[in-house]
Amino acid sequence: MKAKELMDRDFVYVSPSDDIKKVSKIMEEVRRFTCPVLDENNKLIAWVTSFEITKGLRENNETISEIMSPLEDIVTINENEPAKRAVLATANNQFVSLPVLNDDDVVVGIIRACDIVELLSNLYEIKVSKIYEAMEDQLKGVTWDELMEASAVVSRRTTGVKITPEQYEKNIRNSTFGEAIWTTGGLEKFFAGLIAVGELVIARKVGRARK
Amino acid sequence: MKAKELMDRDFVYVSPSDDIKKVSKIMEEVRRFTCPVLDENNKLIAWVTSFEITKGLRENNETISEIMSPLEDIVTINENEPAKRAVLATANNQFVSLPVLNDDDVVVGIIRACDIVELLSNLYEIKVSKIYEAMEDQLKGVTWDELMEASAVVSRRTTGVKITPEQYEKNIRNSTFGEAIWTTGGLEKFFAGLIAVGELVIARKVGRARK
Repeated sequence: MKAKELMDRDFVYVSPSDDIKKVSKIMEEVRRFTCPVLDENNKLIAWVTSFEITKGLRENNETISEIMSPLEDIVTINENEPAKRAVLATANNQFVSLPVLNDDDVVVGIIRACDIVELLSNLYEIKVSKIYEAMEDQLKGVTWDELMEASAVVSRRTTGVKITPEQYEKNIRNSTFGEAIWTTGGLEKFFAGLIAVGELVIARKVGRARK
Repeated sequence: MKAKELMDRDFVYVSPSDDIKKVSKIMEEVRRFTCPVLDENNKLIAWVTSFEITKGLRENNETISEIMSPLEDIVTINENEPAKRAVLATANNQFVSLPVLNDDDVVVGIIRACDIVELLSNLYEIKVSKIYEAMEDQLKGVTWDELMEASAVVSRRTTGVKITPEQYEKNIRNSTFGEAIWTTGGLEKFFAGLIAVGELVIARKVGRARK
């Protein structure tokens, strides 16, 4: 996934000669704490946050050029770089947003922390049953019921708690991937559990085929 | 995972009688765009963001009480609620932060979008080789080399591109779970690939055992 697939193309920007009070009203209206400062060719030249704005208002500055943060202080990302770099920059620097540039240093979008949260949380919201369906699809000759039965066996073996295949099915239809990895103690453990189920049904399938 | 495990216990707060200019300086210093307003018992009574601060400064208001957002406008989360609710609230409402309360409505922490990004991105950063190691652990009697060989076979079958077991191993040591699910086209497909590898090695293992 590239930065340009994650960015928001709809953003406000200002110019260095803009009045601070005017800009503060715009930022309040669109509810953005940060804003790129562009030249007449839409190239990035600086950055303002609400922190510069409050300081500027307090100190009676007039234009954005008096308060903006210079280019060398801004972390940017090229539109064709991996989106992952924006995710890591946001996590490591506590950013709320960062500007996305094209090869000509024109700002083409903004990547925001909340949009990253939305993207990443989509993965967490996938139902565990969807993963089982992919497993059923992959394992030709293994039925859904066999998968549920094997899962109930593996679950009892791991947790010591007896569970019926029907209860297990209900659980995976209600729980998400995010919940499952938190419950099992991590991604690797979650996959190990699924592989254990796979091992059981595959061994049975191979056994049947050899009879 | 509960909200209290995700929240930051270290946060600034203000009281309704605080001076707006003073609060704006504090928020600039600690680089926070939002701030809870607490009463003398640390109970949440209101919320301020940089938007209220800039408006207040422009309109020459004096104290936080004149500009703060009332309790009914604030989305909160109880410390014992699932962290997931904070993640969804952040994604759906474009929040940068939300306050975490205990049962007495005392603010005990703040959950921030950037902290959620850090948490969620940790999962994405897990090396694919770690998942293979969990698989090797789980599948007693299957060696690492057998796993790599089976993976090269499955990879060639899926992509049509020939790859050696050594190349495959190098790839999974360098690539992360996040990259893998983006490359394969989603969590379910990534997992289906792993199950295909599992199927191959397990069939071989069962075959060996029956000889």
